[in-house]
Amino acid sequence: MDGQAPRPTAFDAKSLRTAFGAFATGVTIVTTRGPDGADAGLTANSFSSLSIQPPMVLWSLSKTSSSIDAFRGSAHFAVHVLSAEQEALSTRFATKGVERFAGVPVDRGPDSIPMLRDCAARFVCKTAYQHEGGDHVIFVGQVLEFAHAGRFPLVFHGGRYGMVFRKESAQPAPVEEVGSSLSPNDLLYHVSNAYFRIRRDGIQELRQRGWTGEEYATLSLLGRENGLRLRDIVARNEARGRPITPETVTRLVARGLVGAAAPVDMETEVRLTPTGRQAVVEIIAIHKASEAQVLEGFDPSEVQLLKQLLRRIGSG
Amino acid sequence: MDGQAPRPTAFDAKSLRTAFGAFATGVTIVTTRGPDGADAGLTANSFSSLSIQPPMVLWSLSKTSSSIDAFRGSAHFAVHVLSAEQEALSTRFATKGVERFAGVPVDRGPDSIPMLRDCAARFVCKTAYQHEGGDHVIFVGQVLEFAHAGRFPLVFHGGRYGMVFRKESAQPAPVEEVGSSLSPNDLLYHVSNAYFRIRRDGIQELRQRGWTGEEYATLSLLGRENGLRLRDIVARNEARGRPITPETVTRLVARGLVGAAAPVDMETEVRLTPTGRQAVVEIIAIHKASEAQVLEGFDPSEVQLLKQLLRRIGSG
Repeated sequence: MDGQAPRPTAFDAKSLRTAFGAFATGVTIVTTRGPDGADAGLTANSFSSLSIQPPMVLWSLSKTSSSIDAFRGSAHFAVHVLSAEQEALSTRFATKGVERFAGVPVDRGPDSIPMLRDCAARFVCKTAYQHEGGDHVIFVGQVLEFAHAGRFPLVFHGGRYGMVFRKESAQPAPVEEVGSSLSPNDLLYHVSNAYFRIRRDGIQELRQRGWTGEEYATLSLLGRENGLRLRDIVARNEARGRPITPETVTRLVARGLVGAAAPVDMETEVRLTPTGRQAVVEIIAIHKASEAQVLEGFDPSEVQLLKQLLRRIGSG
Repeated sequence: MDGQAPRPTAFDAKSLRTAFGAFATGVTIVTTRGPDGADAGLTANSFSSLSIQPPMVLWSLSKTSSSIDAFRGSAHFAVHVLSAEQEALSTRFATKGVERFAGVPVDRGPDSIPMLRDCAARFVCKTAYQHEGGDHVIFVGQVLEFAHAGRFPLVFHGGRYGMVFRKESAQPAPVEEVGSSLSPNDLLYHVSNAYFRIRRDGIQELRQRGWTGEEYATLSLLGRENGLRLRDIVARNEARGRPITPETVTRLVARGLVGAAAPVDMETEVRLTPTGRQAVVEIIAIHKASEAQVLEGFDPSEVQLLKQLLRRIGSG
């Protein structure tokens, strides 16, 4: 569609909803206590900040919602902006026929309206206006009290939950040529740096133990799947550029790390000894500790996304 | 703040804006043609879908905006939901004192209102209501026509631009123990798979050429920085677990890939020959081609984010 207007779409409710979904939003839970004294609350993404002086926000609710009477009849409501970790809460407050507040710790606001905890932001409001909005009512609230926490927000886009990440300012793309080295333009450059950064301490440990990369690759593979024949160990390491030979196994046997019948050939079954398994566990523990250290300062949702993107590459 | 209510914040305009910023939004440009016949348009993140039957949307505008008279006096407006690539357009329509429409191709809608192209979605509206909203006016538009394209949206959160990504549904965290192998819970598991996936074709090429990992590591380092002493080549590869020896260099000399004075010792300067440089360029080209293949189906903003996250790890 580049260079052209977006293609006009047939005018039906489903495509309209799809087009509405092109606008990404945060996710909120709006709560009140109805005139009947019962707590009411629902997930809404129609929230918008509105006014600074006086402080006001708005959101809208379907006139056919089971909660409409509660909100129309109440003088107060609270809006809770959800964090990336609160997807389950969002789903619960969007589900019909469940006790939405059951087991959810709340504080009480004006008129005893329920206020949720642990959200990214909260606005406690006095209902200022109820405006006409087609099949919805627009609720405008004057903010009486608010709070916020520096949390990653839950996002809704295209009918699905998402996470939002800051863009780095677009850098001018350097001249791209196939040269004799990788550059920061290449993903492999970054993948490679990350790979060796996380493995740094582990590699140092291997050096101190006097293990070659091929020896550790053999041990590590057996840690995942013990009792392989040398033929399989060779084949699986070949794709990673690590040539395993009978001598690799013979050296590991001599150090008591694996067991294998002599003489070692391609059909020999190779097993970790208890000592060998313990050694692999120790290296894995170092890798995990390095990883935890490297990931300090990352939000859990960033790590989740990183794994998600890398999984698509690794399985490609 | 876990387990507690968000901390109430001092009630001033700046902290209120910060709290408002906790709600992530898409970014729109809203346009109209004022009663004076001049095009008006501005960046707004106060958009919300409102009603399906009749189809309606809303957004709000400050009563002190220089565009308020144009929108108050016009019977139509168009809302354009921006894609991740349109940050520059967003900035332009948020900047005072510039010719916002200069050089921007537009189509013309009802009352000749300007309609931008190439956005993620567009809603052409008849102004249905202008509601009171504190220091803002809430404009409710009945949607006359709409269009959308499956583009990644531009997002605004915490006062900055961002990108949104789909969350995978949260998987129950398996029991975490330090075992004898890495699991998909570990980032290194995914980094490692991605690293070897991108390098797969390159590694196969190295095997066909009969080069060891150490030999290629030497050539590749010289491709980045030619004329190193063996001491430096050894040191830089040590951290990556690749033992380089004088014999590595001697073998590369014998194949005409590097030049080095014999006998090779730690102080010997090593340089790629033209043949060696050409060989490195060929492997790099294979890596780049694999990377392009692996990244098919990725949105450019996903690749950008992936590099951004990996850079934080690699430099950690």
